[in-house]
Amino acid sequence: MELKINLKDSDIPRQWYNLAADLPTPLLPPVTPDGKPITPDMLAPVFPMNLIEQEVSTKRWIDIPQEILDILCRWRPAPLKRAAALEKHLKTPARIYYKDESLSPPGSHKPNTAVAQAWYNKQFGIKRLTTETGAGQWGCALAFACKLLDLECKVFMVRISFDQKPFRKIMMQVWGANCVASPSKETNAGRKILKEMPDTPGSLGIAISEAIEAAVTDKTGKTRYSLGSVLNHVLLHQTIIGLEAKKQLQIAGEKKPDVVIGCAGGGSNFAGLSFPFVADKINGADIKIMPVEPESCPTMTRGPFVYDFGDTACTTPLLAMYSLGHAFIPPPIHAGGLRYHGMAPLVCQAIVEGLLEPKAYHQLKCYESALLWARTEGSICAPETSHAIAAVIDEAIKAREEGKKKVILFNYSGHGLMDLSGYDAFLSGKLSDYSLPDEEITKYTKQLENLPKAQMRKTGKW
Amino acid sequence: MELKINLKDSDIPRQWYNLAADLPTPLLPPVTPDGKPITPDMLAPVFPMNLIEQEVSTKRWIDIPQEILDILCRWRPAPLKRAAALEKHLKTPARIYYKDESLSPPGSHKPNTAVAQAWYNKQFGIKRLTTETGAGQWGCALAFACKLLDLECKVFMVRISFDQKPFRKIMMQVWGANCVASPSKETNAGRKILKEMPDTPGSLGIAISEAIEAAVTDKTGKTRYSLGSVLNHVLLHQTIIGLEAKKQLQIAGEKKPDVVIGCAGGGSNFAGLSFPFVADKINGADIKIMPVEPESCPTMTRGPFVYDFGDTACTTPLLAMYSLGHAFIPPPIHAGGLRYHGMAPLVCQAIVEGLLEPKAYHQLKCYESALLWARTEGSICAPETSHAIAAVIDEAIKAREEGKKKVILFNYSGHGLMDLSGYDAFLSGKLSDYSLPDEEITKYTKQLENLPKAQMRKTGKW
Repeated sequence: MELKINLKDSDIPRQWYNLAADLPTPLLPPVTPDGKPITPDMLAPVFPMNLIEQEVSTKRWIDIPQEILDILCRWRPAPLKRAAALEKHLKTPARIYYKDESLSPPGSHKPNTAVAQAWYNKQFGIKRLTTETGAGQWGCALAFACKLLDLECKVFMVRISFDQKPFRKIMMQVWGANCVASPSKETNAGRKILKEMPDTPGSLGIAISEAIEAAVTDKTGKTRYSLGSVLNHVLLHQTIIGLEAKKQLQIAGEKKPDVVIGCAGGGSNFAGLSFPFVADKINGADIKIMPVEPESCPTMTRGPFVYDFGDTACTTPLLAMYSLGHAFIPPPIHAGGLRYHGMAPLVCQAIVEGLLEPKAYHQLKCYESALLWARTEGSICAPETSHAIAAVIDEAIKAREEGKKKVILFNYSGHGLMDLSGYDAFLSGKLSDYSLPDEEITKYTKQLENLPKAQMRKTGKW
Repeated sequence: MELKINLKDSDIPRQWYNLAADLPTPLLPPVTPDGKPITPDMLAPVFPMNLIEQEVSTKRWIDIPQEILDILCRWRPAPLKRAAALEKHLKTPARIYYKDESLSPPGSHKPNTAVAQAWYNKQFGIKRLTTETGAGQWGCALAFACKLLDLECKVFMVRISFDQKPFRKIMMQVWGANCVASPSKETNAGRKILKEMPDTPGSLGIAISEAIEAAVTDKTGKTRYSLGSVLNHVLLHQTIIGLEAKKQLQIAGEKKPDVVIGCAGGGSNFAGLSFPFVADKINGADIKIMPVEPESCPTMTRGPFVYDFGDTACTTPLLAMYSLGHAFIPPPIHAGGLRYHGMAPLVCQAIVEGLLEPKAYHQLKCYESALLWARTEGSICAPETSHAIAAVIDEAIKAREEGKKKVILFNYSGHGLMDLSGYDAFLSGKLSDYSLPDEEITKYTKQLENLPKAQMRKTGKW
C-alpha cells in the first residue's frame, strides 16, 4: 500500500472548476444596501477587472495561466496521503485519504489563490496589493506571492496578533511585505479608531476597512485589495486541490469518495477540495459532503440565509449567505481562521440546494482529535484543520459501526507549527468550550431585518 | 522542466550505505582516556546491542527493516527539487537541485534516524529513551519517533531554550514526551550543578550528562540513551537521503552532481546526503563535496584532528575527530545545531583522506543567503541550512564566472519556522558576526595534549 500518491508537475490541473456553472439555481448576486445588483464597474477600484470577470463568470472551466502553474509547481501537485495509522487506531474499515496542503512554504492552502491573485493583478498593471490579516495565515500567503511576483505588499495585521504573535509578522517581513499593526495611523479609518480608542486591540473588521481604504485611495491607481476567502474567484483558485485529489484517488484505485470533509471559516479550503465532487453529486454521485465549523461560530448550522455585509464595518457589498450578523463577535477560540460571521456565497447556496451537510464541533473535541492525529499520523495540524479531523474521526467510527468500507477524503488545510499555544492550553487543561445561546445569535441576526432579503427557490432536489 | 522529482513509496531505498566499508584507511576506533579501544560491551548500558553492532559495522549495505520504511514513507521519499528561481536570479548556467528534508512532521532530517533508533531500541526490548536537546530540533524528532513506536521519551532541554523558546517544548509534549529543563533535580549531575549554580542557563554538556545518567541508572534496564548526530549509526540512517537523491538525479537526466553541499554541525545531514557520492568519488568520480560550518565554530576548517571527548563533561569515549576542544563554547549564533566543538568521526576521516572540502561562512552572509532564498525560491530555511545555501550561491556564481553548466546538489535540511527570531534580528540590523582569534582556539585545543593521539596515515591519495 502506498501511503502517498504524488502527481508529476506535468499532471497538475490546467483549469480551475467553477461551481457557479453547475448550481441547480443561479447564484444570487451581491447587492447594494438598497437591493441593486453590484456591477463589475462598482468593484473596479477594489479589484482588477480580470479578477472581477472571474468573480462573475459562469464558465465551467477557466484556464490556469502557465506562469501561475510554474510557481504552484514548487510545492504542487500536493500529495494525497493515506491516514493508515489513524485507520488502524480507530479499527475502522474506512480508507481515509487527505490532501496535504500544509506543505506550501507559508504552511497552508492559502497560497493557491494568493499566487493567482498576485499574478492577475500584475497582468492588469497593478504594482501593490493591500490586505488584512488576523493571526497572519493569509497575510503570509499574500506576502509570499507578492514577493515571487515582484509586487509590493501591505498587510494590516490586527494589533493584538501583531503584538502577541510576532512570528507570522516576521515571516511576512522575510518575504518583504510591509506589515503594520491595525488600527494604524496610515488611514482615516485607523486614525479615527485610534482617536476614540487608543488602546484598542483591533479587529478584523477594522483591518479590512484600512486595507480597502489604502487600496482605493492610492492616487496612482496602481494599488488593489486582495481577499483570502469568501469570494467566488478565491474559491475558484482553490479547486485545484479537489481536481488533483480526483486524479490521485483514481491512481489509488478508488472510484469515488463516499465522504468529503473540510473545515470552513470563509469557505475556501473546503470549497477547493469539495467543489469538483459537488459537481459529481449534482450529476448523481452518492457523496456526503461536509463543511465543518466551530460550535462557537455556527454560521452554517445555526445562522439564517440572508443578505449581509462581508465585514463588520459594513463597507462591502451585501452577500447572500448564511450569517450570524456582521456585528457578531465570535468567542476567542484558537481556530482564528474559522471566526467569521458569514460564509462564502457559493458554499451557502450549495447548502440551500441540499448538496452539503454542514456540521459543528466544540473546541475541546477538536483539540482531542488533533492530538490523536499527531500521536498516530505524526503531524501537528492547524487549529482550523482539527475541525475537519474531528468530523473524519466520527465518520470513520460510523463506518466501523455500520461495517462499511467507506472512502473518506478530507483537506489537511495547514500545519499548526505557528499556533502551538492552543495545544499548550489544551494539554495543561486551560482550554474551554463556548456554547452560544440562541438569544446571542438572534440579537445580531435581527439587525439584518432591514436589509434586502435573500430570496432563493429551495429546490429540495437533493 | 519538472521542478520536483518524486519517487514512489515503493522506490524508497531498502538499504543504508555504510561509508566505513569504503574508506581508504580503516576508521580509527573510539578509545578510553588511557588509549584502549572501546568494546561493544562497554557501550551496552548506553545503547542497545543492535545499534552498537551498526556502530562498529564495516558492512557496505545494511538492510532497512520494513517497519521503519513504513513510518518513513509518511513523508519519504523526500522530493528532489530544482531551485530554478534562484538559478535565474543568479544568472548561473548551473543547475541547482536540493533534497527537501523540511517536509517531515518535525521539520528536519532528524526523524530519519530517530525513527530507526526508536525501532531498534524497541526490538531490543527497551521501553524508554532519554536524550538531550538544545533548541529542540532533535528532541522533537525523538519525541515524534517514540510516540509512533509507542516508547516513552524523556528529553532534557537546555534551560535557557526551555524558558525562552517554548514552542519546540510544546511540540514534544504534543508527541507525549516528558520534557524537563536541564539542569533538573532528577539526576545527580543536575542536582550538583543546581546546588553550585541555581540560576545557570544550562548547557548541552550538562543536558547530555543528565540524559546518559537517566538511561544508565534506570534499574529496570529498559532505558537507553539516544543521540541525534556524530555517531556512525546515526550517519548511516541518514544515507537514505543521498541514496534517494541518486535515483532522482538519474530521473532528472543528470549523470552525476559536480558539487555536493550540506551544512555540518555534528555531521549527520551532510553525511546523509553526501556519503553515497563520496563512495562514487572513491571510485573515481569527479565530485566536489563540501561540508559547511560557521566561522564562529570552525571545527573542520581550523580545528586539529585529535582524540577528544564528545561532550563537554568528558563522560563519552574519545572520538577521533577535528575538534575545537570539548571545553570550547561557541559564540551564540542562531544556528544552534552547528554549535558543536567536534564533528562526526566518519566525516573527519573523509576530510583527512582528502575526500571533502570543508568551508566556513559568517552568520551575516548566511542570513543574506537565506533571505535571497526566501525571496526567490519562496521557503524559509533553518539557520543551519542557510550555511549550505551560502555555499551553493558561491558555487553557482563560480559556475557562471567559469561558464560551466555544473550540477549542484545540496541538502535543505530543515525549515526555519521555529527559528524566526534570527531573521528578525537580521532584518532589524541587530545581528553581528563573530571572528575567533587563533589564540581562542589553541586555548582549548591545548588541553587535549594529554589525551591519546589520533594517528592516521594521511594517504594523500585524493
